[in-house]
Amino acid sequence: MTKKSKSSALHNIEGVSQSEITNASSITKIQQKRKAKPSTQELIAQILKGNITALSRAITLIESSNSKHLQQASDIIKGCLQHTNASVRIGITGVPGVGKSTFIEAFGMHLTSIGKKVAVLAVDPSSSLSKGSILGDKTRMEDLVKNENAFIRPSPSGTSLGGVARKTRETIMLCEAAGFDTILIETVGVGQSETAVHSMVDFFLLLKLAGAGDELQGIKRGIIEMADAIAINKADGDNLKAAKLAKVEFNRALHLYPLKDSEWQPKVMLCSALKHEGIEDIWVMIQSYVAHSKANHYFDYNRKEQSKFWLIQTIEDRLKSRFFNHPEIKEALKTQLQLIEDGKTTPFVAAEYLLSLKN
Amino acid sequence: MTKKSKSSALHNIEGVSQSEITNASSITKIQQKRKAKPSTQELIAQILKGNITALSRAITLIESSNSKHLQQASDIIKGCLQHTNASVRIGITGVPGVGKSTFIEAFGMHLTSIGKKVAVLAVDPSSSLSKGSILGDKTRMEDLVKNENAFIRPSPSGTSLGGVARKTRETIMLCEAAGFDTILIETVGVGQSETAVHSMVDFFLLLKLAGAGDELQGIKRGIIEMADAIAINKADGDNLKAAKLAKVEFNRALHLYPLKDSEWQPKVMLCSALKHEGIEDIWVMIQSYVAHSKANHYFDYNRKEQSKFWLIQTIEDRLKSRFFNHPEIKEALKTQLQLIEDGKTTPFVAAEYLLSLKN
Repeated sequence: MTKKSKSSALHNIEGVSQSEITNASSITKIQQKRKAKPSTQELIAQILKGNITALSRAITLIESSNSKHLQQASDIIKGCLQHTNASVRIGITGVPGVGKSTFIEAFGMHLTSIGKKVAVLAVDPSSSLSKGSILGDKTRMEDLVKNENAFIRPSPSGTSLGGVARKTRETIMLCEAAGFDTILIETVGVGQSETAVHSMVDFFLLLKLAGAGDELQGIKRGIIEMADAIAINKADGDNLKAAKLAKVEFNRALHLYPLKDSEWQPKVMLCSALKHEGIEDIWVMIQSYVAHSKANHYFDYNRKEQSKFWLIQTIEDRLKSRFFNHPEIKEALKTQLQLIEDGKTTPFVAAEYLLSLKN
Repeated sequence: MTKKSKSSALHNIEGVSQSEITNASSITKIQQKRKAKPSTQELIAQILKGNITALSRAITLIESSNSKHLQQASDIIKGCLQHTNASVRIGITGVPGVGKSTFIEAFGMHLTSIGKKVAVLAVDPSSSLSKGSILGDKTRMEDLVKNENAFIRPSPSGTSLGGVARKTRETIMLCEAAGFDTILIETVGVGQSETAVHSMVDFFLLLKLAGAGDELQGIKRGIIEMADAIAINKADGDNLKAAKLAKVEFNRALHLYPLKDSEWQPKVMLCSALKHEGIEDIWVMIQSYVAHSKANHYFDYNRKEQSKFWLIQTIEDRLKSRFFNHPEIKEALKTQLQLIEDGKTTPFVAAEYLLSLKN
């Protein structure tokens, strides 16, 4: 393998058609395949067989901005719909530095070792080809990336959270259709992406570090309340004592909250992703959540509610963008905001006026 | 003052035209008043002089569903706009049973005793004439209701939180124009009304009871994070020890949160509204918040942001109701929700379809 072809292979692992190319010797074959352009029916059939190449290709269509691609993506999803849903979807968040990649590597390796098929996705609306994204640095997950029962896909690029969320939701479905039974969705503990991820997963795991203080500042308000469990990572060596203390404090804090709709009391766990400690316990705990929420029917209820949420959310987002992006409204809004600032109108009078401009 | 006229006075303090009518002896007088129908300019002039009758009358116009009344209300608000803003707006929430009325009575009496003019409003979207509302039972505030420096107004009725919130926001302005310098806005610790009230006040106070447990269940998730202070009420007698313990626990929990935009560290206080203990301290604390947030300019910044929020919120609410109340959409939405439920479409495909029906 020449240096050039190796770097090309690596580059492809990070992106789209990854698996197609990991084997450099097959580039010609792939080029032929690409020319062939598999039909929608072929792609569906291949995805349902667990073919990673077909899965990657379909996800690329989902992420495309070409309307023909989107139509094909939509048809593929429809063809796969019957085969989705049989998975556990786990959201994983935490501020940069908390060790998310190391945790997912260790957690994913444990899951595959017990026979699970693991898809790792990410939601990071700030990511783009130029800026790089979370999960861009695959060197942090070097074992998982080579694992044939794991599928890693970086965050779709895009500046709108709504767009990124849609692509990720649809990608989850395709991964499920391809036989992945555990979906991990990584996001960063800042901005609004947690709320989006929380609305597409069954279980929401917050990674934290011991020594509550400055590092907490980076966590968005409200995330603690969304968590089904807090895992205090890096609970090893000199950190262990502080981690145990933090566990007590978080447990105390979590008990001050009202019970969740799922009737699940959020747990606080210790782990060291680096030393592979506590990882198995976290999976056992998540399984007990799944059993609990399936027994009281919250699991299915929640998935249906999430679907409705995304339907309504998508419509509302589009209604707003239609209105506020209208040139006349843009101009008038500026004027009205100034009038409010100057105390010459009220928000409600201003709203009536703006609404009267476009029915 | 005869018993009869006293009851009429009581009614008039409480509000609107309800009061004008209940007292049989003054019906003729009222009819004469009504015939007179003060002009918009007269009402503005009287409100600015602090005339409670004019204030009540204008609030009734705000609460009316008659479009002529709303136009007049809008003109009155415009005429008062220059004279609003010079107040401290305090939101007070807590589950039923926590002692909100008793607290407001004690707090309001303290404020008037030090020269403040206090308006007590309420936001309870579930209230209606038939169901009764919070603040409906004035017997719980029997001192404050007779106090000439206090103005108490029940929650406007309405089933839409947006509508109730708008009316309350505009009522705040009129109260300020009438010289009330401290506005207390009561709401119940359930449902979404806290978020609305939080978005119209400078300071948000959560009332709680000692002995965290069942009574916490009624508090909506997220309210603790909104609070600028938690006051543990009924901290007297046998309860005192538990209240002190609860104070320590809440302080600990509050410190786990990231700092607020106001850079104010939320406080936990003890009080007994019934025994008038700790009430003064709470006012001192709120004053120190006001000083703090004026010094770092958060106070004004927050008010402007709130105005923008209400502008955008009102527009968004109307865009949504326009769309979702359209008969064709209503019908099609039902079908699409069923298709989602049956796993025959995705939320995103369904959203595109619905949006395509009405551009």
